[in-house]
Amino acid sequence: LDRRTVFFLSDRTGITVDVFGNSLLSQFDELEFHRVYIPYIDSEEKLADAIERIEEAAEEEHHPPLVFSTLVNSGLRKQLRHANCHVYDLFDTFMHAMEMDLKTRAARAVGRTHGIRNLAEYERRVDSMNFTLNYDDGAKLRDLGQAEVILIGVSRSGKTPTCLYLSLQYGIYAANYPLTPDDLDHKGLPAVLLPHRERMVGLTILPERLYRVRQARRPDSQYASLETCRREVRQAEELYQRTGVPMINSSSLSIEEIATEILHKMHLRRHNL
Amino acid sequence: LDRRTVFFLSDRTGITVDVFGNSLLSQFDELEFHRVYIPYIDSEEKLADAIERIEEAAEEEHHPPLVFSTLVNSGLRKQLRHANCHVYDLFDTFMHAMEMDLKTRAARAVGRTHGIRNLAEYERRVDSMNFTLNYDDGAKLRDLGQAEVILIGVSRSGKTPTCLYLSLQYGIYAANYPLTPDDLDHKGLPAVLLPHRERMVGLTILPERLYRVRQARRPDSQYASLETCRREVRQAEELYQRTGVPMINSSSLSIEEIATEILHKMHLRRHNL
Repeated sequence: LDRRTVFFLSDRTGITVDVFGNSLLSQFDELEFHRVYIPYIDSEEKLADAIERIEEAAEEEHHPPLVFSTLVNSGLRKQLRHANCHVYDLFDTFMHAMEMDLKTRAARAVGRTHGIRNLAEYERRVDSMNFTLNYDDGAKLRDLGQAEVILIGVSRSGKTPTCLYLSLQYGIYAANYPLTPDDLDHKGLPAVLLPHRERMVGLTILPERLYRVRQARRPDSQYASLETCRREVRQAEELYQRTGVPMINSSSLSIEEIATEILHKMHLRRHNL
Repeated sequence: LDRRTVFFLSDRTGITVDVFGNSLLSQFDELEFHRVYIPYIDSEEKLADAIERIEEAAEEEHHPPLVFSTLVNSGLRKQLRHANCHVYDLFDTFMHAMEMDLKTRAARAVGRTHGIRNLAEYERRVDSMNFTLNYDDGAKLRDLGQAEVILIGVSRSGKTPTCLYLSLQYGIYAANYPLTPDDLDHKGLPAVLLPHRERMVGLTILPERLYRVRQARRPDSQYASLETCRREVRQAEELYQRTGVPMINSSSLSIEEIATEILHKMHLRRHNL
């Protein structure tokens, strides 16, 4: 495999340049990339340090490295253009066209994307996270009326990470309820959930995947046996079908994919923008 | 304020196009944007539906709307170009230059960016989240040796959301320890933390901001009084200084900014890429 160094330069957190660069790199799977993240480049000195590292990489690899940049300061961007590298710059590329299309001048201010833009929205995000933590694993069951979505599923089917992602990323009040073997044998929705059916999503998972996850947690237990995993998954899926709860199979999905599919399916409004 | 509709089109989760489009829009603060997210556009029919909504918006606003796109399928992208809108397309824009620079053809495959690329890395992320939940608010204190970073700070200074973000986004094992009034009066680091000083970060916050957060939680309590907030913050900052624990002021920072500053300050390796 051919190995190339890729730099991610930004003046603040580097979250935008991370997503920007990696979404493009993901299309080149025949190469191996060595990723170097350099955030908080907010002065000529810091850029000079970064350029030194870029030049070193160019010399070592006998290739100009790739450089993704979201530097807002146009003076810094100009300096970067003289370095021995291929620059892909988000602002250089799109800002001018957007100014023309919107007939407005861009602010060119640093730290706009992932800073606090709106305190109320920000607080909502922390509130929804606290809500999610309080309603994790059915801990508190009164007041589920506040939940925008309630994930149900057997133990270790991915409810908690998905709920936390929904609250942290999108400010969604997400509760979760674990379907216990008793719930599953009872064959109906637990009474406490009945009033909330239209806000519920059922997670399911391949029994083999569940087995692996449970084995790592409680090896050789009844709980982690393949037989138990198979039975619980089958019972849960039957329950979703019988009660009309929409189902998402988390086996081959990332947390982000499960979360966005829930947003989409349940027509939830994201609160962070 | 002039209002413009902006569409975010993607073939999968829409996370990339969200970050891509909003980082650019954040530079145009004199306009008001109405954002429409349309993920999972994976067929000509779904794109035709999206184009219909775009054309309707163009007619209503007497302006062609802005359209950010991360559609990988070039047939769909071609179709989009005939709609009455300004298209900013991540792949159209950069893919060809990258192919030239890397001397390789891009895969042009859908769902690469936020899917599960590597199961081991994915499991680490869930593991680190479980670790973080277990070590929230100093709940379990044995085995802090496993923590890559330990956030300390007074109650409600932002430890929990930051830890959860670090684990969910970057797969970092992040523990947190709340400094109680007793800890603060004692004027030294709690004994349980002493072996881990080089992995600790102290969060601080403006007393007025802390007051607001605590009032929302327990109005008119001693805990939430401005006097208590001022004293605890002062004592915590003195403790950080005395013990050489690096300090981050969370008052004007978003969760993302606090998290990335910690990564940067503590030279932590992110695990999700």
